[in-house]
Amino acid sequence: MQTQRPGEFEAIARHFAPLAREGRFAAYGLRDDAASLEQRPGHDLVLTADALVAGVHFRPADPPGLVARKALRVNLSDLAAKGARPLGYLLCLSLARDVDDAWLAAFAAGLALDQAEFAVQLAGGDTTSTPGPTTIAVTALGEVPAGGMRQRAGARAGDEVFVSGTIGDAALGLAVLEGRVKAPAPAHDALAARYLLPRPRVALGMAAPRQGVASMDVSDGLVQDLGHVAALAGCGAEIEAARVPLSRAARELVAGEPGLLDLALSGGDDYELLFAAAPAAAAALVAAGEACGVPVARIGRLVAGQGVAIVERDGARRLLARGGWTHF
Amino acid sequence: MQTQRPGEFEAIARHFAPLAREGRFAAYGLRDDAASLEQRPGHDLVLTADALVAGVHFRPADPPGLVARKALRVNLSDLAAKGARPLGYLLCLSLARDVDDAWLAAFAAGLALDQAEFAVQLAGGDTTSTPGPTTIAVTALGEVPAGGMRQRAGARAGDEVFVSGTIGDAALGLAVLEGRVKAPAPAHDALAARYLLPRPRVALGMAAPRQGVASMDVSDGLVQDLGHVAALAGCGAEIEAARVPLSRAARELVAGEPGLLDLALSGGDDYELLFAAAPAAAAALVAAGEACGVPVARIGRLVAGQGVAIVERDGARRLLARGGWTHF
Repeated sequence: MQTQRPGEFEAIARHFAPLAREGRFAAYGLRDDAASLEQRPGHDLVLTADALVAGVHFRPADPPGLVARKALRVNLSDLAAKGARPLGYLLCLSLARDVDDAWLAAFAAGLALDQAEFAVQLAGGDTTSTPGPTTIAVTALGEVPAGGMRQRAGARAGDEVFVSGTIGDAALGLAVLEGRVKAPAPAHDALAARYLLPRPRVALGMAAPRQGVASMDVSDGLVQDLGHVAALAGCGAEIEAARVPLSRAARELVAGEPGLLDLALSGGDDYELLFAAAPAAAAALVAAGEACGVPVARIGRLVAGQGVAIVERDGARRLLARGGWTHF
Repeated sequence: MQTQRPGEFEAIARHFAPLAREGRFAAYGLRDDAASLEQRPGHDLVLTADALVAGVHFRPADPPGLVARKALRVNLSDLAAKGARPLGYLLCLSLARDVDDAWLAAFAAGLALDQAEFAVQLAGGDTTSTPGPTTIAVTALGEVPAGGMRQRAGARAGDEVFVSGTIGDAALGLAVLEGRVKAPAPAHDALAARYLLPRPRVALGMAAPRQGVASMDVSDGLVQDLGHVAALAGCGAEIEAARVPLSRAARELVAGEPGLLDLALSGGDDYELLFAAAPAAAAALVAAGEACGVPVARIGRLVAGQGVAIVERDGARRLLARGGWTHF
């Protein structure tokens, strides 16, 4: 790690060097300019990067340990979609002027928790100061059997669409945290937790079939992300609204205010896995979910045409276009 | 690449997808969540990350093509110090609100130039907006023969200290750009160019011996960075002031104002390579420089003790400690 702030060498040594100790990378106690990784024949590396900006992707007052874990987990979620076993990550941390040692300590403690949970290692990075908001850029590395990265492309009309877990909790969680939506305490807490701390579906990602399945994680909203999969496949998609899995808390809110279903379907930050599976691969995908204890629900299909249509229980169809929903 | 700004998908496709086309990484046109890399037995990957913040590491009005190249090159310089052949990079770009399409186009054009010069490929990343200054986080990947990463640690008292190229040009360049130092036009332009566009010593880094040599790149200033090498070796260092290689432009400025030598020795942004070589490896190191056409000058040695002393032509010694120079 390099730094631009006097005294920060010590902070790096104290807070971050312990995170670099164990794993596949030789990270030299973060006292070198780089880490090294022995290459392993028969396996491909998978690389992804995502940055979080305070005030844009998290709230500046969010607990620093949760911010750290979110920054790591959104990247682990990408690795999960690709079917990769996570190995480690590099961290570029641009710190706002009000960040103090306690914030850094809590941030590093959050990383330590998730390193243990996901068996990953800090492999390097950079710490700088910024006159702007704290910005956290993570590059994560994982591994798949050679040729085994599950791509976003390659689906086709006729494939069935599946999603893991439940959809919309994080978007509703942000809404309740910001006071835009009211929820009783248990639902409030459950939804807020899903916004603050994503649960990357790493085990499911590794267990799910790699052939006949396209996949991505749901970060920008189910409708928009399914739109990406469909567009790459040169077709459209249908979501059966009644099949989209909602948590108990989300169901309560939607029952009281049906319009919130659209927020759930398009709000983002779910970090669930979205799959488009050829009919021959669908059973294996559902079985992988059962083996991992993660529900995998069929919610629709890819169809000729373009765009993502929501099909209501009564057969009514809506299409989310730029600027809002079109009913037809 | 993922994005948080509507319309930016198109910008990524137009400006950045062409940068991901050719190379060792399968980057899927940047339309996937991740890239993959086939692992190559007998070689280690080398990974490094560095971020640049507008107003901290570059001036907001600097030409965007040069900013892009600097962001890439400071990382290539780390790979060079480690002896790695550069392969590619991931880019997390947090864009200030006033960044427009022309800025992005020029930024991407700068990257394209350096991709051709250094045979590297964009392998992925992320684009977000920020209410703060533009922030550019790059993770670069390179490759060395197995076990061949040249470390910063491992030097010892008695090793000779070498540096590539010339020292101090970038620090003097920033000083002339900011009007703190006056220089005639040719010197002004030569020094400013060294600040705006580092020249990573990739060929020298790959050709230099990997055994008996510790190395890092000079980014925080020669004295400070040599201090890191010495501290890891558990010893001190001496620099013979008269041996430090200065460019013609730097010599002119120092001749007119001798105090500028300290700025040259401690100013940073050189992106030259610093080596501590065991006596048995020194000749091979100098020969590597000759083979690459890059001067490699012996400027001092590691010695018992601690700290970095500057030895003047008349034998006077100065020690740079926190807060300034101590004469003794």
